[in-house]
Amino acid sequence: MDIMNEKVKKIIEFMDKNSIDAVLIAKNPNVYYISGASPLAGGYILITGESATLYVPELEYEMAKEESNIPVEKFKKMDEFYKALEGIKSLGIESSLPYGFIEELKKKANIKEFKKVDDVIRDMRIIKSEKEIKIIEKACEIADKAVMAAIEEITEGKKEREVAAKVEYLMKMNGAEKPAFDTIIASGYRSALPHGVASDKRIERGDLVVIDLGALYQHYNSDITRTIVVGSPNEKQKEIYEIVLEAQKKAVESAKPGITAKELDSIARNIIAEYGYGEYFNHSLGHGVGLEVHEWPRVSQYDETVLREGMVITIEPGIYIPKIGGVRIEDTILITKNGSKRLTKTERELI
Amino acid sequence: MDIMNEKVKKIIEFMDKNSIDAVLIAKNPNVYYISGASPLAGGYILITGESATLYVPELEYEMAKEESNIPVEKFKKMDEFYKALEGIKSLGIESSLPYGFIEELKKKANIKEFKKVDDVIRDMRIIKSEKEIKIIEKACEIADKAVMAAIEEITEGKKEREVAAKVEYLMKMNGAEKPAFDTIIASGYRSALPHGVASDKRIERGDLVVIDLGALYQHYNSDITRTIVVGSPNEKQKEIYEIVLEAQKKAVESAKPGITAKELDSIARNIIAEYGYGEYFNHSLGHGVGLEVHEWPRVSQYDETVLREGMVITIEPGIYIPKIGGVRIEDTILITKNGSKRLTKTERELI
Repeated sequence: MDIMNEKVKKIIEFMDKNSIDAVLIAKNPNVYYISGASPLAGGYILITGESATLYVPELEYEMAKEESNIPVEKFKKMDEFYKALEGIKSLGIESSLPYGFIEELKKKANIKEFKKVDDVIRDMRIIKSEKEIKIIEKACEIADKAVMAAIEEITEGKKEREVAAKVEYLMKMNGAEKPAFDTIIASGYRSALPHGVASDKRIERGDLVVIDLGALYQHYNSDITRTIVVGSPNEKQKEIYEIVLEAQKKAVESAKPGITAKELDSIARNIIAEYGYGEYFNHSLGHGVGLEVHEWPRVSQYDETVLREGMVITIEPGIYIPKIGGVRIEDTILITKNGSKRLTKTERELI
Repeated sequence: MDIMNEKVKKIIEFMDKNSIDAVLIAKNPNVYYISGASPLAGGYILITGESATLYVPELEYEMAKEESNIPVEKFKKMDEFYKALEGIKSLGIESSLPYGFIEELKKKANIKEFKKVDDVIRDMRIIKSEKEIKIIEKACEIADKAVMAAIEEITEGKKEREVAAKVEYLMKMNGAEKPAFDTIIASGYRSALPHGVASDKRIERGDLVVIDLGALYQHYNSDITRTIVVGSPNEKQKEIYEIVLEAQKKAVESAKPGITAKELDSIARNIIAEYGYGEYFNHSLGHGVGLEVHEWPRVSQYDETVLREGMVITIEPGIYIPKIGGVRIEDTILITKNGSKRLTKTERELI
C-alpha cells in the first residue's frame, strides 16, 4: 500500500471514529496532498467506505488522470457531482469550504450534518516526510539564490518592481513554478510596511530595503527575508538591525522538539521588548511552511502547538517604525531530532 | 459623495430592503472594490447603519490607512474584531465566506442569521466604469505585448517554463503586478490540456503551442490566448485552427447588449459541432473579467445573463484532441452600446 493510500486510510479511521458517512476534500493543497493531482479549476475528493475518488470538471480530466494516484471521474456540471453524494447524511468537510457550497450541499445533495476534518489533515501535513523535506530544501535553495540576486540588483534609482521582476524571473528559470507569494521589495519608508509588495517607488541611497520572497517548487513553498541598506547604514538602522538579528538567532537556536510555538515566539518577542521596541514588532514570529506558504503551526502567542521533528517553520522577527523604516530577518527552518536546521542559508550579517 | 460611498450606499439599501443589521465583506476583490485597500493578510469591511469601517490585522494597518477610502481600525486577534459585531443578529455575507468562519461568527459574535449579499455586489461589479475600463485596457495592452514576446520566444528545443519566465518578466517590467494566472505554455500533446500550465517539456518542431496569459494591472485582469505551430502546420492542425477561428470571430461579432451569455456560447459551440468537433470543446466559451480573472457572467450553457454595455468578457473557444493537440483563440472584449470591442488586439490569423 503506497503513501497516498495511507493518507486515505487515516481519513477513513477518522470517519469510523466519528460515525460519518463520507469526507469531501476540496481545498487545493489537500487535494494534491491526497491525490497527487492539482486541477487548476478545482476538484473534489470524495472518500466513502473504503474508496477515494477525485471528481474534476471535464476540462481537467485528461491532466488529472495523468497525475492522480486515486481514480478520477469527470463532471460537466455540479449537479452531476452532487449525484455522487446520494445517500450521504453526514459529511466531513474542511472549514475553508465556502458557505455557499455548504448551502448547495444541504439543498441539492440533502446532507444533514457537517463535521470538520481539518485536524486530521493538519496532523498529517504538519509533519513533513523525507521526500517533502527534500523538495522544500530545493525550494529554499531557489529562494537563497533569488535573495542574493536581489541584493545585487538593488541600486539607487531602480524601481522596487524591477528588482522583483528580475528575481521572480530567476526563480522560474531555476525551476520554480512561481513565486510563493507576491515578492516584497520594500524600500525606505515602505520597509516599515510588513507587507510592502514591490511598487513603483524608486530605491534611494540610505534606504533600508526589506527583501521577502519565496519559491513554489513542485507544490512546496519556501520563505526568506533579508534586509539591507543602500550605502552606509546610520546608527539607528544598525541598532534595530542588531536587535532583530539577535532575536532571530536566539529563536532559531531555541527551536527544537518539545518547545511550544508560543514559547518560541516569546523568546524573540522578549528580546525585542527588552530593547524597548516591543510595540514595533507587530506580527507573529513565524508560521509553518509546506504546500501552503502559511500553514501550521502559527508561531505566535496564540498557538501552543508543541514542536516536533519534521515540522518546517519560519522564524521572522521584525521591527517597523512607521514613516522611518523597518528590518526583518527570516529563515525557513526544519525541526530536527535534537534542534533545528536552517533550510534557507543566505548570510544574515548584512548590515 | 464619491463613488466609494455610492457603493456603500447600495449595500445599505440592500440591508434596509432585507431587514438585516449589518453586512460583512471579506473577499479580497470586494474589499478592494469598496474601500480601495487590499490588505495582503486580509481585512473585513463592516457596514452597519450608515457607516462602513475596514478592520485589518495590526501589520496591515499603516498600509491600509494609506489606501482606504473608508475609516480603518486595527485588531490584534480576531476576538477584538468580533467585539465590533456585538448586538448584530442578522448579517449579510458573501457566499465565499468559509464554513469555519461562519461557525465562529455564530459562536463568538452570536450572529443568528446569515443572508447572502453576492447579488448586490455582482450587480455593481459586473458593469465596469470608464475608469475600470481604462485600467483593463492597459492590462490587455500588457498581455498583447507578452503574447507577441511569447511567439518570438517559442523555438524548437526551448522549455515551456523558460518561455513563461520570460513573458512574465516582461509583463512585470511593463507595469503588471503579476500574471493574472499561471501562464499556460502548452506544446504538442500538452496543448490538448486546456489548463496546461508551462512545464519542463521542451517544445518540438511541428508542435501546436497554446499560449494563454494575462496581466494583473492595478488590481484588474486581462486574459488572452493564441495558438501557433512551430514550423509548418499539417492539414489537421490547419483544419482545427480554422474552425476555432471561425467560431471565435463569429462569437465576438455577435456579442452585444441584449444577447444572453448562453446564446453567445451556443453560437460558437454550434459552429464547432457542425464541423464534427463538438465533443472536443469541453469548456465554456468564456467568462467575465475584472478584479477577478474569472467573474460574472459565465459565458456558458448555464448562465442566462443578458449582456449589457460595460461588461467585460472573454471569448475563447477551443478544440482539444487528447494525445494529439489543441487550439484555443481568446480575446478579452468589452460590450459596447451597439456591439463589442476587442480589448486584446493581437492578430488572430497565426496559422
